[in-house]
Amino acid sequence: MLSNINPISFINTKKNGIKHTKKEIEFFIDALMSKTIDEYQISAWLMAAYLNGLDIDETSWLTEAMSNSGKKIDITTTDGMVVDKHSTGGVGDKTTLVVLPMLASCGAKVIKMSGRGLGITGGTTDKLSSIPNFKLDLTAEQIQKQLDEIGIALTGLSEEVAPADKILYHLRDTTGTVDAIPLITASILSKKIATGAKHILIDVKCGSGAFTQNIQEANKLSTLLIEVGKRCNVNVFTTITDMNQPLGMACGNALEIVEAIEALSSYKPTRFMNLCIELASQTLLKSNIYSNILDAKKDIIKKLNNQEILSKAKEWLCAQGAPADLFTNPYQYVQKANHIENVVYQGKKTWIEKIPSSIIGQSIVDLGGGRTHKDDKIDHSVGVKVFIEIGQLIHHNDILFQIHSKSQRDAIAIKEILLKSIKFSSDKIEPIPIVLKAA
Amino acid sequence: MLSNINPISFINTKKNGIKHTKKEIEFFIDALMSKTIDEYQISAWLMAAYLNGLDIDETSWLTEAMSNSGKKIDITTTDGMVVDKHSTGGVGDKTTLVVLPMLASCGAKVIKMSGRGLGITGGTTDKLSSIPNFKLDLTAEQIQKQLDEIGIALTGLSEEVAPADKILYHLRDTTGTVDAIPLITASILSKKIATGAKHILIDVKCGSGAFTQNIQEANKLSTLLIEVGKRCNVNVFTTITDMNQPLGMACGNALEIVEAIEALSSYKPTRFMNLCIELASQTLLKSNIYSNILDAKKDIIKKLNNQEILSKAKEWLCAQGAPADLFTNPYQYVQKANHIENVVYQGKKTWIEKIPSSIIGQSIVDLGGGRTHKDDKIDHSVGVKVFIEIGQLIHHNDILFQIHSKSQRDAIAIKEILLKSIKFSSDKIEPIPIVLKAA
Repeated sequence: MLSNINPISFINTKKNGIKHTKKEIEFFIDALMSKTIDEYQISAWLMAAYLNGLDIDETSWLTEAMSNSGKKIDITTTDGMVVDKHSTGGVGDKTTLVVLPMLASCGAKVIKMSGRGLGITGGTTDKLSSIPNFKLDLTAEQIQKQLDEIGIALTGLSEEVAPADKILYHLRDTTGTVDAIPLITASILSKKIATGAKHILIDVKCGSGAFTQNIQEANKLSTLLIEVGKRCNVNVFTTITDMNQPLGMACGNALEIVEAIEALSSYKPTRFMNLCIELASQTLLKSNIYSNILDAKKDIIKKLNNQEILSKAKEWLCAQGAPADLFTNPYQYVQKANHIENVVYQGKKTWIEKIPSSIIGQSIVDLGGGRTHKDDKIDHSVGVKVFIEIGQLIHHNDILFQIHSKSQRDAIAIKEILLKSIKFSSDKIEPIPIVLKAA
Repeated sequence: MLSNINPISFINTKKNGIKHTKKEIEFFIDALMSKTIDEYQISAWLMAAYLNGLDIDETSWLTEAMSNSGKKIDITTTDGMVVDKHSTGGVGDKTTLVVLPMLASCGAKVIKMSGRGLGITGGTTDKLSSIPNFKLDLTAEQIQKQLDEIGIALTGLSEEVAPADKILYHLRDTTGTVDAIPLITASILSKKIATGAKHILIDVKCGSGAFTQNIQEANKLSTLLIEVGKRCNVNVFTTITDMNQPLGMACGNALEIVEAIEALSSYKPTRFMNLCIELASQTLLKSNIYSNILDAKKDIIKKLNNQEILSKAKEWLCAQGAPADLFTNPYQYVQKANHIENVVYQGKKTWIEKIPSSIIGQSIVDLGGGRTHKDDKIDHSVGVKVFIEIGQLIHHNDILFQIHSKSQRDAIAIKEILLKSIKFSSDKIEPIPIVLKAA
């Protein structure tokens, strides 16, 4: 009762712009775990930390305290190089579903803990939950077994591993405190450290649909991730990739599962697949599984064409509960939307200058496919298919979008918003490269 | 579902430093009342509003929306001038208990809604709750009756009047967002407006034990109160008074009740009573009950000496449930602390330079007499009696403080803190005037 640190004085410190001590940060995570700090106090602190910032020391202490808040997964006995790949999240980002089988096919062991949707960006576990009975709460034993036998284990945020992050993640999602670089850093790395991977690729998304909307912010996040990684003894490396437009065609949980299945079943060098190959080959290089990136890329493409990667994906998803013939007929399992509406271009030929992925992300939330409150249920079936890319020349009657919604009424409201959001140009527009800065 | 205002976008607006519209503020108070915004979202917004500010328009809209969030008390038929007196709160501030009977004895009708303790400052309802069975939830009918018959009605924050304030008040108290001038203004005036008083004195406390710790901040609050009052059609006037040291001798709920009873029973021109007379006479002047402040002061002192004000106080407190002989033997009713410990000065003669009231306020919280969490129970019996004033000359073996605590252990910890907090001076120190700026 007479202690110096209490929830209010902790909040006041950051409110007044004062640097926390390591002890204060540890107090905070202890209080959060023991529920001696209330949710409304945590969110007040989150906003103070958002507006007044956390420096590299505070971020490292927070990361460590969060990663120590629960059990750690012991994978030191697993054969092979244990790697992890993480994306800071964007609209239509389903790379995990493709990159993990690529890595495992090339000899890496991939352990990954994924989160739910945050704000306008989707979450991998929400996407995988489109598959009925998909198992996201793996035990430490199951993780070890899958790593040994398949080379891939993907688990949702469990109560056991870095549980402090789960609490903070939900609160940030619903209080506008998602896009704070130190909080993003601590959230990402606390889980990675607790899951035991030693080589971690972070794909920092940059653009209107990402937390970091410009290259300066993306560089800041990238630098902080690498530096905090060093202090916590993990090898963190980053890529910065474009999120000014959605990634791939499908945006929305079930739609993205189907797109990933199709991409693995029949390889085409799309913008989305080029990114997946880049991420996988960089990871294979940085974790010393390959000594040359071109060899890694060649092997991946070979294994895409001979369907080795497809087989690995099946093996993985089935081990976690997917039905054996999901890949043959996905719509037998994942839910289709009630209503499908095409948005057609009516006008003279023109170039696409902007497709704000933030608006597409918000549209998915508005359609019911994302969360406004932390306990909101989401509708896996809804979403938007995007048939255009920045720099593309389009003509009268081309389909721009396809809206998958609960009702025609919802679709019409979203149609208006999407049409207004695109910027057309009568002058030729250059496409944006997918990789803005390689690892 | 497709609306433009939702809790997250509302928080984001203030987080990004953008001015709210009137519609957004109304949405917020509606959402707060209908619980479609969660507590952790409200507190995130409170912190954003704390750090990024609310301007005079936003504060006026917030005040109005809060005052419209429940029932309004209809006192237009009450005879006489309806006045109200409010203190922004400080350590040892029990003026309400004395000023209300002064005003009523001189012909005013006083309606007052009081709050619970906020941070290190006490709350009048906590103090009155030291009296067993004291009734703080008056109905509109009871208020009307007491105004007509006695001239005083004091009620706690009810679910019925400005209920939005009660929700915000509790959250601010436990998230470090108490001392934000726009939030203080809206909190004070929303209740006043809903209770129907037309002339309102606000005693703005200034110093280390108050929300506004220096004269600049106190002036800002004072100006905002007057200006928002104008926009809401009430006559607001302010005094700025010292809170660099506790007000009166007793700090702590039951101790303050006893001090007020003693001050009313036997008038002495102490610093505390001088302030009460100043506040009452200014209010009588500004509400046109007296045309000359000296006449008002003379009448008050006369009525103190002939015990008219004491009788009025009895009449009032008994109407709300106090036992008839509370004034004769208060400790028969209010709880005494388990342990009483004197803090004695050991040293050469010296002047008192500082008695940080914030530390005394925090000590009371630490002793159990204030709240850290909004649902904390408080111990009415604990507190600190302060036997010194700034500018006082003290000698070896003088008693500085008297700690009233649950246990000797608590007293010893607080004793250390209090002794360290005082600043002594070998040079003569001037006393600080109680009124820093008159109305």
